[in-house]
Amino acid sequence: MKHQQRSQLIGIYPGSFDPLTNGHLDIARRAAQLCERLVIAVYATPSKNLLFTVEERAALWQKVIAEEQLVNVQVETFTGLTIDYARARGATAIIKGLRSSADFEAEFKQGLMNRKLAPEIETICLFTHLEHLFISSSLLKEVARLGGDVTDLLPTTVARALQQKLHGEPR
Amino acid sequence: MKHQQRSQLIGIYPGSFDPLTNGHLDIARRAAQLCERLVIAVYATPSKNLLFTVEERAALWQKVIAEEQLVNVQVETFTGLTIDYARARGATAIIKGLRSSADFEAEFKQGLMNRKLAPEIETICLFTHLEHLFISSSLLKEVARLGGDVTDLLPTTVARALQQKLHGEPR
Amino acid sequence: MKHQQRSQLIGIYPGSFDPLTNGHLDIARRAAQLCERLVIAVYATPSKNLLFTVEERAALWQKVIAEEQLVNVQVETFTGLTIDYARARGATAIIKGLRSSADFEAEFKQGLMNRKLAPEIETICLFTHLEHLFISSSLLKEVARLGGDVTDLLPTTVARALQQKLHGEPR
Amino acid sequence: MKHQQRSQLIGIYPGSFDPLTNGHLDIARRAAQLCERLVIAVYATPSKNLLFTVEERAALWQKVIAEEQLVNVQVETFTGLTIDYARARGATAIIKGLRSSADFEAEFKQGLMNRKLAPEIETICLFTHLEHLFISSSLLKEVARLGGDVTDLLPTTVARALQQKLHGEPR
Amino acid sequence: MKHQQRSQLIGIYPGSFDPLTNGHLDIARRAAQLCERLVIAVYATPSKNLLFTVEERAALWQKVIAEEQLVNVQVETFTGLTIDYARARGATAIIKGLRSSADFEAEFKQGLMNRKLAPEIETICLFTHLEHLFISSSLLKEVARLGGDVTDLLPTTVARALQQKLHGEPR
Amino acid sequence: MKHQQRSQLIGIYPGSFDPLTNGHLDIARRAAQLCERLVIAVYATPSKNLLFTVEERAALWQKVIAEEQLVNVQVETFTGLTIDYARARGATAIIKGLRSSADFEAEFKQGLMNRKLAPEIETICLFTHLEHLFISSSLLKEVARLGGDVTDLLPTTVARALQQKLHGEPR
Repeated sequence: MKHQQRSQLIGIYPGSFDPLTNGHLDIARRAAQLCERLVIAVYATPSKNLLFTVEERAALWQKVIAEEQLVNVQVETFTGLTIDYARARGATAIIKGLRSSADFEAEFKQGLMNRKLAPEIETICLFTHLEHLFISSSLLKEVARLGGDVTDLLPTTVARALQQKLHGEPR
Repeated sequence: MKHQQRSQLIGIYPGSFDPLTNGHLDIARRAAQLCERLVIAVYATPSKNLLFTVEERAALWQKVIAEEQLVNVQVETFTGLTIDYARARGATAIIKGLRSSADFEAEFKQGLMNRKLAPEIETICLFTHLEHLFISSSLLKEVARLGGDVTDLLPTTVARALQQKLHGEPR
Repeated sequence: MKHQQRSQLIGIYPGSFDPLTNGHLDIARRAAQLCERLVIAVYATPSKNLLFTVEERAALWQKVIAEEQLVNVQVETFTGLTIDYARARGATAIIKGLRSSADFEAEFKQGLMNRKLAPEIETICLFTHLEHLFISSSLLKEVARLGGDVTDLLPTTVARALQQKLHGEPR
Repeated sequence: MKHQQRSQLIGIYPGSFDPLTNGHLDIARRAAQLCERLVIAVYATPSKNLLFTVEERAALWQKVIAEEQLVNVQVETFTGLTIDYARARGATAIIKGLRSSADFEAEFKQGLMNRKLAPEIETICLFTHLEHLFISSSLLKEVARLGGDVTDLLPTTVARALQQKLHGEPR
Repeated sequence: MKHQQRSQLIGIYPGSFDPLTNGHLDIARRAAQLCERLVIAVYATPSKNLLFTVEERAALWQKVIAEEQLVNVQVETFTGLTIDYARARGATAIIKGLRSSADFEAEFKQGLMNRKLAPEIETICLFTHLEHLFISSSLLKEVARLGGDVTDLLPTTVARALQQKLHGEPR
Repeated sequence: MKHQQRSQLIGIYPGSFDPLTNGHLDIARRAAQLCERLVIAVYATPSKNLLFTVEERAALWQKVIAEEQLVNVQVETFTGLTIDYARARGATAIIKGLRSSADFEAEFKQGLMNRKLAPEIETICLFTHLEHLFISSSLLKEVARLGGDVTDLLPTTVARALQQKLHGEPR
């Protein structure tokens, strides 16, 4: 069978990752299986209150990627439009994780806008693993701040960093 | 940069396609960009009333694929579980198009079941192009049956076949 | 102030009305306030099991319209595409009642198709009154068939007809 | 046929319009077809960060209305409850555009409250045109601020004003 | 502290259970913790195609209840309105499991109708356990019929009965 | 019939209640019917702008509970995780009211997190009464602030307190 001239699948997985969760890691791991290369793009300046600096958020991903030995994954930070960054990096697809129909509605709207701005870049949605369904960075931070135990919802490295950030205990 | 040993992305795009619409074609075209190979898998025996036989439904896809010169796309028919067929064909991903949050809920449930049955096969969701949002095979058939003009919502080949099937006019 | 040349607002309120409920009557009453003329269009041949014939369904509307003294409202029956019927009757708008986001998704899809088929005809959605939120003809029939009392969810005329139809008691 | 004594259909289309988009204009244009008179009511003091002053937001509507020659449309500004303003202006209906089921849920809740406060004023929902589905003022501002090109999602007049406001370039 | 005169909490958990799944069992187990007594009410004549007779469906529940040693749970069969049956059995609450917002919308509508018919009987909703989110009797039957392995989504007793029913193998 | 050893049903109904509405009261009244004891738990420090202090919010509940003669209901205030408070108070269930599918999605996510943190505590959802569907504390405050009359959506005691708080009139 003759194959079409198809460009490599270079994915970009954007987010604020404040901090990354097991849910994010699950999506990254599966996207790394699909893509020739995957760029985890940590958004530097989201319009929300952040717990970790952009350097910390990227460094946590770096450690986790190394621990997981995801060799075709890079971590970078960016500002500006996701779609402009995707273009600049030569990405052919933006990766998104879906947990609920609320997620769907938000990503659909965003995805249609992105397609208008850059029709050549595809948006790929993956379903979150069932056990990560109730996990979001903001809920985890809220629960952890109030003393709830969220260690098994985060990579060990991240759980330790969160603990130290919130309660000043040594890593 | 060293690349992970990554298997080829072989996609399967399953459906009853009774008949295929411009919305289906749009998803197939974009999936063909993402995948090394794409198998359009026409489900032979869905539990609904069909207008076209499985042979007709597959033949329409064949013609449209040829017209569109999608060289890395094959059309096949299957029965049984989608996931069993995907495995048998060596597929690494199942492709789905999402039009609405109702679609999302249905595909999420199905996708979670598929992951349980075959954890190694990914479900990839693509957003339907905006102009195809209101198109479904069943709605098109209903409108066409009542005399509405749906020709520009279908590939020309399919529009002609539908016309003939419903009103007996020569193609 | 100078007014634009605006055509009259002629509304069509389509449905299978098997039978009409207080929820339908509420929408009709309010649509009659908005429109110069309102046509209640009873769809003769919906693809579902019907309890009442199209003549009975229209006759029930006729009685209720007379009782309510809705002087700018007519009742008619039709087959074929709603949009074709609307055009033939010179309607400028199709009226729909919304009870839930499931209703919204269905009507949105239908409304977009109708706009494609007849861009000059508007779809107007009205919110169902709160107390009619849980009422649908099919649920009422199911409950009534099993002996539940649904008389105050229906106009008296309709409640009597339903009772007779299901249990053979004299009106 | 004798017609019911029906009051004129005077619509009010309320919003913060910061700034108005092609989606808003589409709704206004269609509402102007339905209503004898339409008042675009620019809400002066919404509880969110605004880019344009209330005078600027109203002036942009004024220009666009003039360019579009919508002769039965007026632009006004207001504070306080929408429903009180509607009453004071003699409006018989509030116009809303629906883009998604999230929109539906928000407008339904608001519409039920408004009906409780002023049962004589109807809420009329129109479906947003498909191509405006992903447009919201807040998303447009966010994209434009980051350098994305949104000019064809806005009336020319508004696109120029937005450009100047954000990047200080002359209109 | 003085306690209000409160009637016992007698729950009824209605369904067609064709057959019962691990998801149903999870809800029953948790409802049995909440209620003084729980009646599992197997609906004899749902308007859908059934795989198991009402006797078989009840007998499967009986076995599973015995295996699980749920001592305050009874299994019964019924016809007619759930609410009439609940009343006849002296139930004070109807138990429902929620898996998704589609479930919510259906149960909300049903619950409001039930409250109208029997205001004294409460509807209690419990969230399905995460791992049962994608399980429904109809999906399980469809998958099993096509040869998929669903044994760990069903109580062992039920898995065996389903296997025998579909493929004629001895239990 | 022998009954399982079942612990008492001690419910906790948490919220910020700023201020409590007729919708909240309806849920409390019905939860008080289900539970041996019900604790209304006023959350002291929600991350939103508050109109009433935590003491005022609790005092309003106290008055209303007394007026309603709900003898098995206590009012308390708390900080920290709801689930920790529930455990400390020996609660066996957390009570939630559902008004819409948006409510459902939020409570589902929260409920799954709570089950992870405290598997022994059940989340019980009750459907809001139809007439309270459009009521939320934040919407009521917004409407009241702008001069709308919301007195019949609140217990008299609360309506008076809200009036005084917003407009300085004597109770």
